[in-house]
Amino acid sequence: MTFKINQEIAVCGGRLLKLSHESIATKTSMDVNVYLPKQFYQKSSKIIPSIYYLSGLTCSPQNASEKAFWQIQADKYGFVMVFPDTSPRGEGVATDPENSWDFGIGAGFYVNATEEPYSKNYHMFDYVHNELPKSLSEHFNKDGKKIDFLDNIAITGHSMGGFGAISGYLKTLDKNQYKSCSAFAPIVNPMNVPWGQKAFKGYLGDDKSKWEQYDPCQLLKVVPSKNNDKILIHVGTNDPFLERELKPDNIVEASKGTTWENKIDMNIAEGFDHSYYFISTFVPMHAEFHAKNLGLI
Amino acid sequence: MTFKINQEIAVCGGRLLKLSHESIATKTSMDVNVYLPKQFYQKSSKIIPSIYYLSGLTCSPQNASEKAFWQIQADKYGFVMVFPDTSPRGEGVATDPENSWDFGIGAGFYVNATEEPYSKNYHMFDYVHNELPKSLSEHFNKDGKKIDFLDNIAITGHSMGGFGAISGYLKTLDKNQYKSCSAFAPIVNPMNVPWGQKAFKGYLGDDKSKWEQYDPCQLLKVVPSKNNDKILIHVGTNDPFLERELKPDNIVEASKGTTWENKIDMNIAEGFDHSYYFISTFVPMHAEFHAKNLGLI
Repeated sequence: MTFKINQEIAVCGGRLLKLSHESIATKTSMDVNVYLPKQFYQKSSKIIPSIYYLSGLTCSPQNASEKAFWQIQADKYGFVMVFPDTSPRGEGVATDPENSWDFGIGAGFYVNATEEPYSKNYHMFDYVHNELPKSLSEHFNKDGKKIDFLDNIAITGHSMGGFGAISGYLKTLDKNQYKSCSAFAPIVNPMNVPWGQKAFKGYLGDDKSKWEQYDPCQLLKVVPSKNNDKILIHVGTNDPFLERELKPDNIVEASKGTTWENKIDMNIAEGFDHSYYFISTFVPMHAEFHAKNLGLI
Repeated sequence: MTFKINQEIAVCGGRLLKLSHESIATKTSMDVNVYLPKQFYQKSSKIIPSIYYLSGLTCSPQNASEKAFWQIQADKYGFVMVFPDTSPRGEGVATDPENSWDFGIGAGFYVNATEEPYSKNYHMFDYVHNELPKSLSEHFNKDGKKIDFLDNIAITGHSMGGFGAISGYLKTLDKNQYKSCSAFAPIVNPMNVPWGQKAFKGYLGDDKSKWEQYDPCQLLKVVPSKNNDKILIHVGTNDPFLERELKPDNIVEASKGTTWENKIDMNIAEGFDHSYYFISTFVPMHAEFHAKNLGLI
């Protein structure tokens, strides 16, 4: 449960901590970056909420820390940012036999693998939605609760991480784990696209009923929407993965006739691609959305 | 003089253009990124000024484009950003025989080399301060002047590029080339630090009178300050290169008794390092400084 501080970097009005810790869920050391905003250093009694950002294929915690510019927004509204890794890593961790970039290391897909050899380490769902929040809360709140890593929290992510955010949000909605959910260019219907099919087959096997337990388009049908929950999504028209992997229409269609109808706030952004140039452009809107839901504005 | 558009990326309210062109000064193809702010796409008759950002050792035009977040500021005030490369590159371009990262390719030091074999291609001073602005102006203003790349312009840079910015500003002050100059963690006294000595010896030879023609601490003595010109500088106290390569005190000391006394606005930022986390934090202040000098506020 102890975190090692590998680096502490001054940025904006706060500090980015590059941390690592031994995970029970993944049986490996996991890297995670945490941005503590300026409000953390101003001695106030207010408890600071957190936003979890799940990165896309090939990313480590560094990419979004360097390029998404959540830090400016974190200082503006007063929230902590958590940037988990995208998979277990290190010696002994199985990866794609073909060493591709869309499966295995860097591509954990935020599920709990049930298939050998991935079932040993690839428990990213438990890690991200259960172990990590608890470990962060224990670590940072030793001397009294300063940061809320468990209750007043929100989730977002990009591409594979956008899938992870929506899937994790829906699968924990019964216990109200996240106050809000958003996604940048998410894979919304993994069962029906190549990246998702490869991942689900590899991590979960051939039984499609197991796939359905993670697929947002399936989850919308079985997880009732509460109150006025909306899921905020941006996708760019110049995203090279739009038609083949993202298929944003699928989740809007899937919501029809369910309690989620008209609650998928899908924004198709003209001219934007799949990169951090796209993400960083819409981070301010997503930050404002979550800040409202976290009671910061 | 023609630019090839290799990529055009939507970011913030404008577009980042990844360009390349054949340079006469360096006798190579040169990469340059140009950010056109939202104001460029709003049909206004206002001519948009430009800021040139010179990058540090090992960088290409991509690093600052991705991590410095000038785009937000460019949209806020309405200026174009130009991100030139740090050296000539490609087949036939001489580099450090030891392939080090602090000399040769990626480390052109923004001087006109006079020593073989570097004198063939390493004419970065002429390229950045003369050929590039003219070429950009011709290319973008074919159908009437929309962007000012030549007159209402400012210059800034980081580390080696901070040196390049200050040196270039002072060396062209007689013709008022730049309206303002700022720098992030600049090498202010290259003659007296290892990076600068290696570069000057390699590109300019042993004659120290040639070194003095580029060294900001020497230039302050011979270039008279005009009006209320201030040079804005930020350096972090956790910068690993602070004592050995940057020596910020040297330029403040050198200004004493010259027309530049009290005109070096040196800000030592507690806890910051040498990275883009540091740069991006202070970009908003530098943007405001230049915007004022460019008549935008």
